[in-house]
Amino acid sequence: MTMKVLGYAAHAAKSALAPYNFERREPRSDDVVIEILYCGVCHSDLHHVNEDWITTYPVVPGHEIIGRVVSVGKQVTSFKVGDQVGVGCMVDSCQYCKPCKAGLEQYCEEGNTLTYNGFDRHDHMPTYGGYSEKIVVSDKFVLKIPEGIDLAAAAPLLCAGITTWSPLKHWQVKKGSKVAVVGLGGLGHMALKLAKGLGANVTLFTRSPDKEEDAWRLGADNIVISTDEAQMAAVNGQFDLIIDTVPYVHDINLYIPTLSLSGTIVLVGFLGDLQPTLNTAPLVMGRKAVAGSVIGGIAETQEMLDFCGKQGITADIELINMQDIDKAFKRMLKSDVKYRFVIDMASLKASE
Amino acid sequence: MTMKVLGYAAHAAKSALAPYNFERREPRSDDVVIEILYCGVCHSDLHHVNEDWITTYPVVPGHEIIGRVVSVGKQVTSFKVGDQVGVGCMVDSCQYCKPCKAGLEQYCEEGNTLTYNGFDRHDHMPTYGGYSEKIVVSDKFVLKIPEGIDLAAAAPLLCAGITTWSPLKHWQVKKGSKVAVVGLGGLGHMALKLAKGLGANVTLFTRSPDKEEDAWRLGADNIVISTDEAQMAAVNGQFDLIIDTVPYVHDINLYIPTLSLSGTIVLVGFLGDLQPTLNTAPLVMGRKAVAGSVIGGIAETQEMLDFCGKQGITADIELINMQDIDKAFKRMLKSDVKYRFVIDMASLKASE
Repeated sequence: MTMKVLGYAAHAAKSALAPYNFERREPRSDDVVIEILYCGVCHSDLHHVNEDWITTYPVVPGHEIIGRVVSVGKQVTSFKVGDQVGVGCMVDSCQYCKPCKAGLEQYCEEGNTLTYNGFDRHDHMPTYGGYSEKIVVSDKFVLKIPEGIDLAAAAPLLCAGITTWSPLKHWQVKKGSKVAVVGLGGLGHMALKLAKGLGANVTLFTRSPDKEEDAWRLGADNIVISTDEAQMAAVNGQFDLIIDTVPYVHDINLYIPTLSLSGTIVLVGFLGDLQPTLNTAPLVMGRKAVAGSVIGGIAETQEMLDFCGKQGITADIELINMQDIDKAFKRMLKSDVKYRFVIDMASLKASE
Repeated sequence: MTMKVLGYAAHAAKSALAPYNFERREPRSDDVVIEILYCGVCHSDLHHVNEDWITTYPVVPGHEIIGRVVSVGKQVTSFKVGDQVGVGCMVDSCQYCKPCKAGLEQYCEEGNTLTYNGFDRHDHMPTYGGYSEKIVVSDKFVLKIPEGIDLAAAAPLLCAGITTWSPLKHWQVKKGSKVAVVGLGGLGHMALKLAKGLGANVTLFTRSPDKEEDAWRLGADNIVISTDEAQMAAVNGQFDLIIDTVPYVHDINLYIPTLSLSGTIVLVGFLGDLQPTLNTAPLVMGRKAVAGSVIGGIAETQEMLDFCGKQGITADIELINMQDIDKAFKRMLKSDVKYRFVIDMASLKASE
């Protein structure tokens, strides 16, 4: 039997979010039914609400989901009722292409199934995200949340966390690596914490001197104001890896000279045309690379969650009520959040 | 004692090359004096003659040098009179920075000493290249040329060869790798031969259907006309590595979709602003990278030469006389050369 669920949806592009009653599918044999406790608020939620990206309405955003298992399908052996679990940006993938077989479902050759604004691969019904009471997800895409972790503050690990963890691991950051992070927002502050957790020496690039105090508190070993030429020159040739989290057009040429020989700058936040254009000379003359990376696979998400559990790493969050989501979106647009809004889904009851 | 040497020089920007008598330094204890037999003609020679790149005149071009040892300094133990040797793009480097210590002298933090249009690190005199009778080079930058190899056809290995070999090795091309090469010129035809030699499956991207016959002969496994959308679509997601040898502005966005997950396109020929600009979306959505690479280190150059000796790999060349260099430059500009001009330095005697 399908189940009635209350959520918050945008019913049209740029509309305010409003309560929305919809149905979740009848659980299949491999499904886990999850009562949602917390859901992080990602920039991409706002992109979908605003139709910056192609969106089917109504859209129920939310892909940083923390909850508790309320029932499981009969084939499910890895989860049981009461388990604390997470769901990130994907809820399914083909499972047989080369990337899927390599545990990199985010790069599924057939396209993964997004947690919201997607279509289920089996019943072709729209997927709805975590701004809701419950979600039904195939066990292969459900994550275990380590005991002892602050559940609300763990929610952003499911997107902001894994999006920065995956490139840190792929480009083999380890003790002693020299890493820089561009931008101190939701992704940037996680990149900083995770790179520190892996033992790297971490520099924050920021244009805002007012972020310095926070960056030191979050563990930065060095802070470079990227508009200060002398400070930029002082870190010439320093970084094995730069994680660039900035989600809008910005000049990446600025950062290339700060890469070490064979270093890589990885864009995780910006999809679009580089403006100003990239000059290839410093790439050629230093065997440097400009790369991109999107979220991470399920196995590496679990690895990251376990790592965060052991290291006590979570996001810095501001807990909000579901009813305050539009205010939160407005503040996000001004980068006025330290560093991730998380919705306390208990607040949804007041909208019933 | 310094030695008088005849060469060919451009005496001013865009001037025709003309005979030029100059002095080589008195050999130091670590120097090898080489009688030049053959010198390849590289696009960068023309860039210097035309002052496309910063140049001090008179300039004696040439950095694909094959010759025979005529004398050695008293500390030299690796070379003896009569040895067949090579000199590439560099004749010195600091020897103590991290890249130098790693055998990557081309990325010397103090800047390597170019074979021509550079200044000797010790006596600060200008360096003059291989369009000349003799050259004096520190033994650390002299390469051994394997026995049995065609000496004239081996000259282009010193620049075109190593420039494509170094990224093939750095990005770990091996048996079964899927490699594509953009452009079939001096560099491109070497990339094709070397990648094939390493056991890769090699595709040539070209805009010129008239290059097909040659590409098959050179060993290409596949040829893709890059202006043909259907052919491009057919190789979507195929290549672990693309070596892009095109030396002028061109649209690299075209090739990104043909990279496999985590694949890299390496620019080895173009220094400048990417136009049209790079779109980051396919990089992010496929963990792909745009990188650059310049020539190669001395140890890897020797490795490449030894490999070519064993595999019987040399360049396809047109042997010319020194006096015909300006004609050769004109044909190079029209890509009318298969695939590298090499100067028979014996012809220089006619200019005495």
